Amino acid sequence: MTNGPILLTPGPVQIPESVRAVMAQPIFHHRTPRFRELFERVTGKLKFVFRTQNPVYTLVGSGSAGMEAAVVNFHSPGDEVLVLDTGKFGSRFTELARVFGLCPRVIEVPWGEAVDPSQFEKALTQFPRVKSVFVQLCETSTAVLNDIRAIGEKVRRTDALLIVDAIAGLAADVLETDAWAVDAVIGGSQKALMLPPGLAFISVSPKAQARMRQSSLPRYYFDLQKYEKNLVSGDTPFTPGTMLVWAADEALDLILSEGLENVWARSRELGDFTRAELSAMGFRIFSKAPSSSLTAAVFPEGFDAKKFIRLLREQKNVTVAGGQGAMKNRMMRVAHMGSIGKEELQAGFQAMREILAGMEKSEQRVA
Amino acid sequence: MTNGPILLTPGPVQIPESVRAVMAQPIFHHRTPRFRELFERVTGKLKFVFRTQNPVYTLVGSGSAGMEAAVVNFHSPGDEVLVLDTGKFGSRFTELARVFGLCPRVIEVPWGEAVDPSQFEKALTQFPRVKSVFVQLCETSTAVLNDIRAIGEKVRRTDALLIVDAIAGLAADVLETDAWAVDAVIGGSQKALMLPPGLAFISVSPKAQARMRQSSLPRYYFDLQKYEKNLVSGDTPFTPGTMLVWAADEALDLILSEGLENVWARSRELGDFTRAELSAMGFRIFSKAPSSSLTAAVFPEGFDAKKFIRLLREQKNVTVAGGQGAMKNRMMRVAHMGSIGKEELQAGFQAMREILAGMEKSEQRVA
Repeated sequence: MTNGPILLTPGPVQIPESVRAVMAQPIFHHRTPRFRELFERVTGKLKFVFRTQNPVYTLVGSGSAGMEAAVVNFHSPGDEVLVLDTGKFGSRFTELARVFGLCPRVIEVPWGEAVDPSQFEKALTQFPRVKSVFVQLCETSTAVLNDIRAIGEKVRRTDALLIVDAIAGLAADVLETDAWAVDAVIGGSQKALMLPPGLAFISVSPKAQARMRQSSLPRYYFDLQKYEKNLVSGDTPFTPGTMLVWAADEALDLILSEGLENVWARSRELGDFTRAELSAMGFRIFSKAPSSSLTAAVFPEGFDAKKFIRLLREQKNVTVAGGQGAMKNRMMRVAHMGSIGKEELQAGFQAMREILAGMEKSEQRVA
Repeated sequence: MTNGPILLTPGPVQIPESVRAVMAQPIFHHRTPRFRELFERVTGKLKFVFRTQNPVYTLVGSGSAGMEAAVVNFHSPGDEVLVLDTGKFGSRFTELARVFGLCPRVIEVPWGEAVDPSQFEKALTQFPRVKSVFVQLCETSTAVLNDIRAIGEKVRRTDALLIVDAIAGLAADVLETDAWAVDAVIGGSQKALMLPPGLAFISVSPKAQARMRQSSLPRYYFDLQKYEKNLVSGDTPFTPGTMLVWAADEALDLILSEGLENVWARSRELGDFTRAELSAMGFRIFSKAPSSSLTAAVFPEGFDAKKFIRLLREQKNVTVAGGQGAMKNRMMRVAHMGSIGKEELQAGFQAMREILAGMEKSEQRVA
């Protein structure tokens, strides 16, 4: 069992040593053959992980920058769009759509549940003019995995685009961008891609490219047509995140050498293991459609969740995330994506058991 | 003389070893006291380098992200703005203003020259309704330093905001944000702050804050009011660039321990040295108002600039930047900001002399 820090938060996740080592190297200039070759290689590997033949653009920004890019590149003012809202990040799509003058129709799914494909089909019939459907692959606030394949089967028969936020799910949950007809997939560097935060990725299908050329929302930094034009020569329209692109070359190699299917299988197994361990400790598993990226575990009624998370970090050097929104101070979220192994998870659970035992003891003393 | 790579491009510049070492360390989560303390400390140091009491917000993005933030946060559709265009990045403000529905009035200054304060004053009288004045401290495409103090003296007497892109100049050219009444200063991580690209910074004066509350351009990722609200608790509205913020803590310490005035003086001396050396080699110094960040040097007529830059990189491991826009293939740009020392510059100039000699020889052979 390790005594070093164990980071179990759903982004950032632990960064492998070989990836970290890259970032300590001397930087080089991006308008050089060296960078262009690197960038082309990384873009190729990203396409592999995205399971797509579509171009994948790399932006310097947080994941939300990728979400905003998906809103402003494919729409015109007043466009009706359908948001499948399964949590905090689903709601972010609604906020973005409103801010940029779109007309969002929202299916609000109760937290902890996935989108019901038949309810979704009804909504598509009710709002036949929607230009896009927005949904999370894995909704990080609830650890819910949505059935993108089922949603894709409906959307592909319409003129609407299917836009999937896979920031948390990518390279942990199964995602078949092309086979499932996903028009735009948004990724982020700091989740299962095992990099620091700072890069957002977005893939664009031919259907989405055609839409992009007609859409009139103003955009500049997020204008994917600028990225498209530059990608031809291995360039970026703005200064790229050189060191993160370089680190991505290594991190993606780790995924490719393990094999993407193997990474998916490992994440699923670690998810099963995590849910079993946390259930045995007395937590309630929050998600009714669990993701392989992370697990959300609800504390027993009246339990001091905030204190538990703090003691776990301060006394055991194990960091998990708390709940968000209505689940704040009632839940913890434990990631099992990326390079994390069973041993480290076990060490984390052992630390949790010890903190739980200590808290129960001190509460008995008070009683 | 070193044989290692010498990076003399105006962003990225060389990153000190102690800064690079930070980025190889294990990452930690940002919603923790540890990150909040770090972020508050870094923000404090940034304010010191910006010479301001105003808040400085840190965005994940390239420098252009900071420029877009300055456009969308302080304006409403149709606003008249004045752009002082001294080069490629000046023109970027015009493009941004047009894309977001503003009405830019542009003073196009010939490349290589700085804004003429009396011409600027005339423009202010001619367009009394301009809501903002946009200008570069150092225009990276021409190595021109603008007289921000003189511009600030005029703008402060109006209702307009003075918005200065100091991405290239910050911590190399003298900039007194508060004393010169600059309402928004934009910085970037990959210039004299000696970090990899990936963070943009923006300071906001009380006058600009008041404008921000009235301006109606849509914004989300770049919405500084979200950053303002979060900064109170040491937080960021979106996942921060954790590793770059951490590295900034170290890089800013290097600046603070040398002393900002000393860094300014060193950059100015290295600039004088660079211009003398390049003049002696037969280059023409392009900028009539030279910046301490970089020097732009024009090749003799008919000289194969592209080949020179390539050979310098391939044979000597010394990287400089070429010209941009109309000066493409006619100019090189050599940075002397950040941690670069006189010895490395000297090694770079020696390499240039050798490449020049080789090229002249082979041309004579052809003749």
